[in-house]
Amino acid sequence: MILTVNAPSHRYPIYIGANLIELLQQYAAQHTAPSCMIVTNETIAPLYLQAVANVFQAACNTVHSVVLPDGEAYKNLTTLNCIYDALMTQRLERKSTLIALGGGVIGDMAGFAAATYQRGMPFIQIPTTLLSQVDSSVGGKTAVNHPMGKNMIGAFYQPQAVFAAHNVLNTLPCREFSAGLAEVIKYALLGDSAFLAWLEEHITALITHNADAWAYAVQKCCQMKADIVAADEKESGVRALLNLGHTFGHAIETEMGYGNWLHGEAVAAGMVAACRLSEKMGYITPADTRRVQQILSAAKLPTEPPRFAFDKWLSHMQHDKKVQGGKMRFVVLHSLGKAAVEECNDAELLRSALKEWLPEKV
Amino acid sequence: MILTVNAPSHRYPIYIGANLIELLQQYAAQHTAPSCMIVTNETIAPLYLQAVANVFQAACNTVHSVVLPDGEAYKNLTTLNCIYDALMTQRLERKSTLIALGGGVIGDMAGFAAATYQRGMPFIQIPTTLLSQVDSSVGGKTAVNHPMGKNMIGAFYQPQAVFAAHNVLNTLPCREFSAGLAEVIKYALLGDSAFLAWLEEHITALITHNADAWAYAVQKCCQMKADIVAADEKESGVRALLNLGHTFGHAIETEMGYGNWLHGEAVAAGMVAACRLSEKMGYITPADTRRVQQILSAAKLPTEPPRFAFDKWLSHMQHDKKVQGGKMRFVVLHSLGKAAVEECNDAELLRSALKEWLPEKV
Repeated sequence: MILTVNAPSHRYPIYIGANLIELLQQYAAQHTAPSCMIVTNETIAPLYLQAVANVFQAACNTVHSVVLPDGEAYKNLTTLNCIYDALMTQRLERKSTLIALGGGVIGDMAGFAAATYQRGMPFIQIPTTLLSQVDSSVGGKTAVNHPMGKNMIGAFYQPQAVFAAHNVLNTLPCREFSAGLAEVIKYALLGDSAFLAWLEEHITALITHNADAWAYAVQKCCQMKADIVAADEKESGVRALLNLGHTFGHAIETEMGYGNWLHGEAVAAGMVAACRLSEKMGYITPADTRRVQQILSAAKLPTEPPRFAFDKWLSHMQHDKKVQGGKMRFVVLHSLGKAAVEECNDAELLRSALKEWLPEKV
Repeated sequence: MILTVNAPSHRYPIYIGANLIELLQQYAAQHTAPSCMIVTNETIAPLYLQAVANVFQAACNTVHSVVLPDGEAYKNLTTLNCIYDALMTQRLERKSTLIALGGGVIGDMAGFAAATYQRGMPFIQIPTTLLSQVDSSVGGKTAVNHPMGKNMIGAFYQPQAVFAAHNVLNTLPCREFSAGLAEVIKYALLGDSAFLAWLEEHITALITHNADAWAYAVQKCCQMKADIVAADEKESGVRALLNLGHTFGHAIETEMGYGNWLHGEAVAAGMVAACRLSEKMGYITPADTRRVQQILSAAKLPTEPPRFAFDKWLSHMQHDKKVQGGKMRFVVLHSLGKAAVEECNDAELLRSALKEWLPEKV
C-alpha cells in the first residue's frame, strides 16, 4: 500500500508492506544517486545493514555506512558530528542520498544531518520501530536534543520516501513495541474516537504482531499524520495537536535522563497527565482518564508519571516549543477523540493536575 | 533606501542608509517579539551592542545577548553550541527574534542557529562589514565550517530584514574593508561589465569611504543578489554564479587555516585562479586577467593565491558543494562581466591553470 504525504514543501510516498527488502527493491530500481550513505546503529546494523546496502548497491555507484551507538542518550550534537565527519570523509555530494535505517533517534538525527549537510541533501526513512513507523519518520520533523530540552535543535525537512515494513518488527523488543503503541493510541485520542474503540478491541492482536491489525493501525496513523502535515507543515496551528502528552512527556524524558524512559513510555504517562489537566479544566471525567489508563495498561505501557518535584516539572515545561510570550500551552482533551491547544499559566491548576505524582512533603 | 528580496520562501527588506541606529529605530517601532537575543563578537560588542540593545529594548520585553570570540576560526559547531546554550538558558521562544550583529561569520552562524533552534525562529541581519553588507547577509545562506570544508553544514534560511549602514564601516579595519571589495568586484565580473568600468573609476572613492560611492555599490550588489535569489533560492542553477572565485577561494581558506586569509582575500586570489582557468579554456585573454588583477590591486587585495601543492588543491576542491557525480564544477568567465558554470575534471588543465602558484619541484 502506498500513502502520499502532500507537504507544502515536498510530496512523497509512504510504502507500507510485509517485507522490507521487497518494498525497497521496487523503489531502488528507479532510484539513482551518485552515492548514498546508510546511517544506522549498533543494534540494527547486524540485523539489516547488509541486506539494505545490497539493494542500494545496484542503484547507487557507492554505498557507504556509518554505525552509531544506540539510544536516546546519543541523540545530540556530538553524535550528529560523527555523521558529518563520515559524510565529509566519504565525500558525499549534495545530490547523494542519506538513508536513515533505525528508530526515531536515528531518523531524527540522520534527517537533521541531511537537512544541513551542504545545506540539504535528499534522504529516505526506513523506520525499524513501530514508533518511528507511525510517527517520527513521517512529516519531516528532524532534531537532536539539547541537555536542557528534547528536540530543541532541528529542522523541518521532508524525506524523499518512507518505508514501513512489518517484518522488521519481528526483531523489536516488546518494550519498544509497546512504546510505539503509545503514539498509536495518541492518534486515536487526539482525533478519532472510532479508532480508539477499534484499538480497544484489537490491542491483543497488535501486541501479538497480527499483520492485518498492524497494517490497519499503521495506515490509519500515517494517513492522519499526512493530513495534518499537509494542512500545517511547520506547526503554526493544527500540527501542535500531535504533541498530545508530549509537553509532560518531554519533561519526564529530560528529568529522568534521556533514554531511561523510552519516548513512547514518557508520552503514555504524559497523556495521563494531560487527561488529568483536561479533567481539572472541566472537559473530561475521571472515568475518561481511567479508560485511557486501561488501554495504556493493555498495551503494557506506564499509566502514570514518575515522581519528581513540581518546580522541576515547571522548569522543563517552560522550555517547551509551544511556549508563547512566556505562557505555557498544552494539548488537552475536550473529549476522548478531540484535542485542542490551550494556554495554561495557572501554576496551581498544573500542580493540582500533577498532585498525585508529586513527592510527599516531608 | 529599501530594496526587497523576493525569495520564494520569504519576502523581506534590505534597509540601506547612513546611520545604523536611525535605520533600526524605524523598524523596531513596528516590531514586536516576546524577547530577542543579539549575537555578536568581542570586537563588535564594545562598539555597538549597547546602542542596538537600547533600540530593541522598546520593541521586545527582554533583550539578551551572547558575545562570541571573533574570527573565522570560531565558525564551527562548538561556537554554534554556545549560541544554543544561551538561547536555552535565557528561554528564547520559537517566536523570539535572533539578531546577528557582526560580519559574515556572525551572520552565518547566528543565521544557522536561528534556522535550527526550535526548528526555526525569526532573525535579522545587521552586517557590520562591507563583505556581509553586499553578500553574506542577503540571500539566506547560513552555515558553519567543517574542519574539512568551508560552510559544509548549514541551511537556506531567510532573515526578516537586513540593515546595511554606512557609519558602522568607520570602525572597520582597512584590511576587512578591502576584503569586502573583493565580493563587490565579483558581482561586476560575473554579470555586469558596466559596473566593472564604474568600479575601475570609483575604486579610490570607495577605499576612502565616500558615502555616495558606497551607497551605489551596496545597492548595486544587493539588487543583483536579490534578483538571483528570487530566481534560484536554493542554488539549483544561476545562483551558483555567485561562487565565482569561491571554489579556489575555499580551498585557500581550508589549506591556510580558517581566518589566516580573510574570506574576501581568498576570493580575490580565487578569482584570479578562475580567470587563469577561463584563459586555459580559451574564453578570456591574459590581458583580461591582468585587468582583474589591476582592480584587485587597486582595492588592496591579493592578486594571486598562496603556494601549495596541486594534490592539496585537488583534495579541497573535490569537497566543493558544486561537485556532481564525482565531477568538479567551476564558475568560469566567458568574458569580464559574464560567468558560467562548467564541469572540469581535467586535472592537467587545472594544473596548468594553477601552475605559476605550485611549489617548484625539488
